Amino acid sequence: MSDQVKYVLGESEIPTHWVNLLPDLPGQSFPPLHPGTGQPVGPDDLAPLFPLELIMQEVSSEPEIEIPEEVRDAYRLWRPSPLYRARRLERLLDTPAHIYYKYEGVSPAGSHKPNSAVAQAYYNRAAGIRKLVTETGAGQWGSALSLACQLFGLECEVFMVGISYDQKPYRRAMIETWGGVVHRSPTDLTEAGRSQSAHSHGSLGIAISEAVEVAARSADTNYALGSVLNHVCLHQTVIGQEAIKQMEMAGEMPDVVVGCVGGGSNFAGLTYPFIRRDLREQTSTRYVAAEPSACPTLTRGEYRYDFGDTVGMTPLMPMYTLGHDFVPPPVHAGGLRYHGDAPSLCQLVREGVVEASAIPQTQAFDAAVRFARAEGIVPAPEAAHALRAGFIEAERAKQSGQGRVILIGLSGHGHFDMSAYDAYHAGELEDLEFSEAEVRDALARLPSAPAIS
Amino acid sequence: MSDQVKYVLGESEIPTHWVNLLPDLPGQSFPPLHPGTGQPVGPDDLAPLFPLELIMQEVSSEPEIEIPEEVRDAYRLWRPSPLYRARRLERLLDTPAHIYYKYEGVSPAGSHKPNSAVAQAYYNRAAGIRKLVTETGAGQWGSALSLACQLFGLECEVFMVGISYDQKPYRRAMIETWGGVVHRSPTDLTEAGRSQSAHSHGSLGIAISEAVEVAARSADTNYALGSVLNHVCLHQTVIGQEAIKQMEMAGEMPDVVVGCVGGGSNFAGLTYPFIRRDLREQTSTRYVAAEPSACPTLTRGEYRYDFGDTVGMTPLMPMYTLGHDFVPPPVHAGGLRYHGDAPSLCQLVREGVVEASAIPQTQAFDAAVRFARAEGIVPAPEAAHALRAGFIEAERAKQSGQGRVILIGLSGHGHFDMSAYDAYHAGELEDLEFSEAEVRDALARLPSAPAIS
Repeated sequence: MSDQVKYVLGESEIPTHWVNLLPDLPGQSFPPLHPGTGQPVGPDDLAPLFPLELIMQEVSSEPEIEIPEEVRDAYRLWRPSPLYRARRLERLLDTPAHIYYKYEGVSPAGSHKPNSAVAQAYYNRAAGIRKLVTETGAGQWGSALSLACQLFGLECEVFMVGISYDQKPYRRAMIETWGGVVHRSPTDLTEAGRSQSAHSHGSLGIAISEAVEVAARSADTNYALGSVLNHVCLHQTVIGQEAIKQMEMAGEMPDVVVGCVGGGSNFAGLTYPFIRRDLREQTSTRYVAAEPSACPTLTRGEYRYDFGDTVGMTPLMPMYTLGHDFVPPPVHAGGLRYHGDAPSLCQLVREGVVEASAIPQTQAFDAAVRFARAEGIVPAPEAAHALRAGFIEAERAKQSGQGRVILIGLSGHGHFDMSAYDAYHAGELEDLEFSEAEVRDALARLPSAPAIS
Repeated sequence: MSDQVKYVLGESEIPTHWVNLLPDLPGQSFPPLHPGTGQPVGPDDLAPLFPLELIMQEVSSEPEIEIPEEVRDAYRLWRPSPLYRARRLERLLDTPAHIYYKYEGVSPAGSHKPNSAVAQAYYNRAAGIRKLVTETGAGQWGSALSLACQLFGLECEVFMVGISYDQKPYRRAMIETWGGVVHRSPTDLTEAGRSQSAHSHGSLGIAISEAVEVAARSADTNYALGSVLNHVCLHQTVIGQEAIKQMEMAGEMPDVVVGCVGGGSNFAGLTYPFIRRDLREQTSTRYVAAEPSACPTLTRGEYRYDFGDTVGMTPLMPMYTLGHDFVPPPVHAGGLRYHGDAPSLCQLVREGVVEASAIPQTQAFDAAVRFARAEGIVPAPEAAHALRAGFIEAERAKQSGQGRVILIGLSGHGHFDMSAYDAYHAGELEDLEFSEAEVRDALARLPSAPAIS
């Protein structure tokens, strides 16, 4: 058996196409609906915010979409990302399972987010757009978009949730280093911001409203979203395609693929190419979506139409949701605090292709620390949820005495989240669970919407 | 011309030997002297602090030293590190030069430091040592050693300079995540610490004294140093050996190699294999050592015997020095604030093989921000000094209209240094230069020591 721990691809093996799973999704798909008319959203509704190419990707029935050469050129700065065999971790866990992880923390922004950011910047510039506006919570997406705009010669404006702006100055400094302009949201630059000035801590919902408002009022300015939408999930599929090649190098394929889920783009990016492979090659793989138990969208939410944002400006989307005004408690995995999930992923969960697992954050950090001590890399709190779900699979392999091959998506590093590790080491991390009554209450506040099934 | 930007090696190309330049050093070498007797230091003097294998490496005349398989296995977690062609940066600088950079920020600790830390942990464990003790300023070395001790099953105790402990909690949290115990120095755990309790901010000199004291009083506990010594420089030569292979892949060799210098181990690791190659293959390369103008050891120090630490406990070493009680001002490149430099590097400077260049920190940060905007990676402030020196070479190429090939050592990322970028963006960074009188004053305080030439 080889002692190899890293499977490294050359630049020529950066994928040439993105995998579009939309035409292969099992079960019935429901269209997004206009929030005013209740009718399916058309390209014209989205044109003030997105360039036509991205709108077409959003509804494409092509199984593959070619990656523009300029986007592949940007990918070369950090892609292909490495896939590791976690031999030291296997020994630590004393498991017969083979554990692999695909590591997206090698991007300059430290997460998978730039995979879509550079694509969005490219298509916007090609459409003559001058500036992109977005929101960011903890700062992962904002930093990725700032980098991407710099690479493609666009301006970048980021509305950063007020409390994150105050508590995460390093992410803000990173956005500024790449040339982006950061506003502490709520601002007095927008009507949405002025109307919410009482909420001085801000929220992702308010920040979205501010970004959308700024983007909508200028013809040369567009909006960019970092997850949930089909085109964002699409761009992330470079991850899974590389992982398939790397697993082939390792000489085995995963029995189970595990990833964390916030809006779903990281999970989609890793798993959709494997799901496509299952469909085409009649293989069978389990998929586990790890979400925080403090924001249990897939495991405890309701499948129905809901808004993507808090204030109800976006189209109604068919998804598992905890209610668009649900405010998840401040767990440290800021990237997983979203009331809904990507419609494509929700459909896969509903159809039984993807399993969901809710992970308490103390268990996630316990897994992250054990991982760091075995493998070196200090994981992002988001990725820690996937690790914990992977450890559960490894323990099952041990209990059953059977080997199994586990692939974990390690979406990013935790260099900007060390205060969370500090809290964990000090025993100050809490598990923020919800009672049935709280979930019922959140669901009871959902807007009336067309029936979904 | 290839569009390739990354040159990636497989795990099998991790070097099998370290390059020991000691037998090839030009000019006269002077031995370290015992601080009490003034006689050359022998192995017995060092035995209370270091294992025999490292002591032998310190004085070895073998041109190559084999890397133990267990150390290579640890290297596999992040090595080989990538070498990049900086095409976007070349366009930004509008230079005909070809710029390459070798990036050590891919290690779990984010710098080159683990290259020696894992080797030191290995040899100490092989010698039956149970615990390593060290000091750390900004935390790069302390985090690297904590990781290495975890990988090799050793305990790790780190005396962290008080003001860094207060100002850099994230580096401390990283050391703790890997299992290391961190003390805010000065402590009341040592005589050295108690005697310096008035200096509540601490200093690297006090922290060294505390670590050495703890290591010396237990037979199963040793001390570990992160730079300056021959064996530390030796371990870093994996960097340059990989870089030579990667430049061969790129089809050209550097005309000039640039690196930053604090204690010298990063610079030695990159350049010594190239210098060996020059000697063996009759090639000719320029080498530029970039140091901060606030701590201009090589450019303005005196070549003579001096102590390695502030309180005068270490052997006297032949080197360029600003005086062992010289306290550099608080520039943000904490890793470059050292009064002396590795004796082997100093000898190369003295013999004219290596040029030295003093870089003001505002110019370093200007280069770092331009680099980040072109190449994505946010550099450590230390590496920013090398970038600036590299930019000067690129500008010379432009002025002369001649292409030249520049290789820059990018020793680490700046994820834990974003407050320095914040200060730069806010226009609050100062250049802390020294007058001739201040340098003269520092040199006048040097201890009496044997004449060197």
